[in-house]
Order: sequence, then C-alpha cells, then structure tokens
Amino acid sequence: MPKLVDITSQRRAIAGAAISVINDVGLDGARLRDVARAANVTTGAVTHYFDGKDAVVEAALEEVVRRILAKQERAGTKRMDVRTFISQACSYLPLDAEGRQEWRVWLAFWGRAIADERLRALHRQYYAAIAGRLVDLLPSIRKASRRQLTRCADAVIAAIDGVGVRATLEPELWPPKRQRETLAGLLLPVLTEFAEEK
Amino acid sequence: MPKLVDITSQRRAIAGAAISVINDVGLDGARLRDVARAANVTTGAVTHYFDGKDAVVEAALEEVVRRILAKQERAGTKRMDVRTFISQACSYLPLDAEGRQEWRVWLAFWGRAIADERLRALHRQYYAAIAGRLVDLLPSIRKASRRQLTRCADAVIAAIDGVGVRATLEPELWPPKRQRETLAGLLLPVLTEFAEEK
Repeated sequence: MPKLVDITSQRRAIAGAAISVINDVGLDGARLRDVARAANVTTGAVTHYFDGKDAVVEAALEEVVRRILAKQERAGTKRMDVRTFISQACSYLPLDAEGRQEWRVWLAFWGRAIADERLRALHRQYYAAIAGRLVDLLPSIRKASRRQLTRCADAVIAAIDGVGVRATLEPELWPPKRQRETLAGLLLPVLTEFAEEK
Repeated sequence: MPKLVDITSQRRAIAGAAISVINDVGLDGARLRDVARAANVTTGAVTHYFDGKDAVVEAALEEVVRRILAKQERAGTKRMDVRTFISQACSYLPLDAEGRQEWRVWLAFWGRAIADERLRALHRQYYAAIAGRLVDLLPSIRKASRRQLTRCADAVIAAIDGVGVRATLEPELWPPKRQRETLAGLLLPVLTEFAEEK
C-alpha cells in the first residue's frame, strides 16, 4: 500500500525551501537541486511536484503572498484604530530574517516581471487580494466611499512597499527603528485625516 | 588623422540603448548585440567602450540615475513650497514612456541586487546622492534639524518608490492621475506638518 503523502504540505515545504535559495543566490542562480537540498528531498521529488524551475520559483512567490494573507487573516476583520493599524502595517516590513527573505523574493520577482506579462498578471492578482483585505482593516472611516477606501489602501500599500524596498536594498542602514519611524511618519497623518477620531 | 570621438557621449548613447533593451526584454534577456543594434553601432564598438555585459547594464542604471539627478538639478536649489514640491515629486513617477522605461530598469536592478553586494553598494550610493539633493529642495522647515530633514527625505523617497513600483508593475491600472493622487495623498499631510506654512 503506497505511503500517503500530504501533497499540499510537501509542495509548500519545497516552496519554502525555494524562498531560502532565492534569498541566497537570486532568481538566476536558483537551481532545482539546491531547492531539493534545502527542502531535504531529492531533485526528482521536486520535479514530481513542480513542472520545472519556473513553477518552483512561482510557488515561492505564492508562498510569500500566502504568508502575507495569513498575517492579514490573523489580524481579524475588525476595523482598527489608527495606532493599532500602523503597528500592524509595520509588521509587513523586513524587520527580521524571515521578513527580509520574503522581501528579497518579492524584489527578485519584480525584476523578472518587468519583461514577463504572466508574472505581471500574477502580481496584479496578488496585490488585488492584499488590497482587498486591507480595505476591511482600515481605521474606521466616516462616510467613506469605496473610492476613498481604495485610495487609502493604495497609499498604505505604496508606503509599505517604498519603505520595504529601501530597507531590503540597504539592510545595514535601515534597522527596524528607521523603517517603523518612516512608515509611521507617512501613515499617521494620512490615516488620521481619514479616520473618525480626527 | 583619427576621427575625434566624444567618448562620453558615445558611452551614454550606448547606455541609453541598453535602457531600451532592458525595458523590452529584461536584464537576463539583454544581449550585447541587441544593445549595439539599438545604439546603431557594432557589437565591437560596444565592447570597445564597455568591459562586457555587466558593465553595459550598469551603465544603463547609471544613466537612469544621471537623469534623476539632472532633473533635481533643473529644479534649482531653492526650497519649494509644498504644492510645488509635490508636483516636482510627481515628475519622478512613471508617467510617460520614458519614465516607465527608467522605472523598469530600476526594478530589474533591484531584482538583481538582492544577490549581488556590488550592485547593492551602487544602489546605496545612488540613493545617498538623490536623498542628499532632495534635502535641499524640501519645503522650508522651521528649525529643522539635520535628522528631521533626513527623515522627511526618507518619507518622500519611500512614497515615490512605493507608488512607482506599483505603477510599473500594473501600468494599465495606474494611469498618471492615480499615481499623482496617491503620491499627493501621502506627501501633502506629511509635508504640511513639516513646513512652516502649516
């Protein structure tokens, strides 16, 4: 009788290994056998689950997005007050080793996506999912129209991306404190203007 | 008597051609002969000026930075009022074909820089140059310390980067109006708080 394998968790383990390999050597340098080694499986096991290198690295990106969405999920569905929201927003920055890894994978894919329409479509889809949930968490807004909420979510995502990019490229110059201060400096006035407790 | 050639302008023409090739096919796909064709010179001419592909693509990034610094230069050295500053900040976004090209090159290099310490060092240097000039243009600030100016410049750069990334990845969804509104939405409250004319 064949051994039962949890396919989803195996795929996710390999995707997680791919994140760490991309983190170390970039997208160009990532090889299936290194992913296999990092996942502690054979290269054959990797190709059993994935249709080649592109599929593996895309699974890495998908895993990064899944973690972001899971973090949003854990944040609940209640609108937050401004301070709580900002502290939650800061938690998406590259503040620790895991966060830095995930950001490096994001940046690797941005670089690849500029000349790859399929990857851009994936990014659009991921941003839409993240923005969609973000809208529900925005600090309570008085008579906010859908358009205002979207604009506020746009601003929040841009602020996180902008700080995250810089911190990912200059980790030595951007310790968590500078990241948090810069993000809070951008978000506090915008959100205060938007929220009821003005 | 040998023909006199303006080496700098030739190098810059090739770098400009490299920008357009990277824009079309990404960093991986960019080949010296395509750069040569786009620059309307021979591949030999390209390798005469540059020490291989890495040097050519780095020259493309340098050219993008040179254009940003030139734009800052043209903006003068006087502190601006908040509205003028924001409108100037918007001009760094990917609003037109040339801007989109330059952003795509930036993103391509971010993706490469994550696994390349030398490229990260270049980025640090470029950001430092851009931030240094930006500080001089910030809306007049009352009793601003160097630290406050730096923090304000950090926020401005993060906001531009964040909006620019999203617009570069989703050009169809981010026409100039949405880009400008999002950037102004982030910068107006921050800068108003900072500037004298509060």
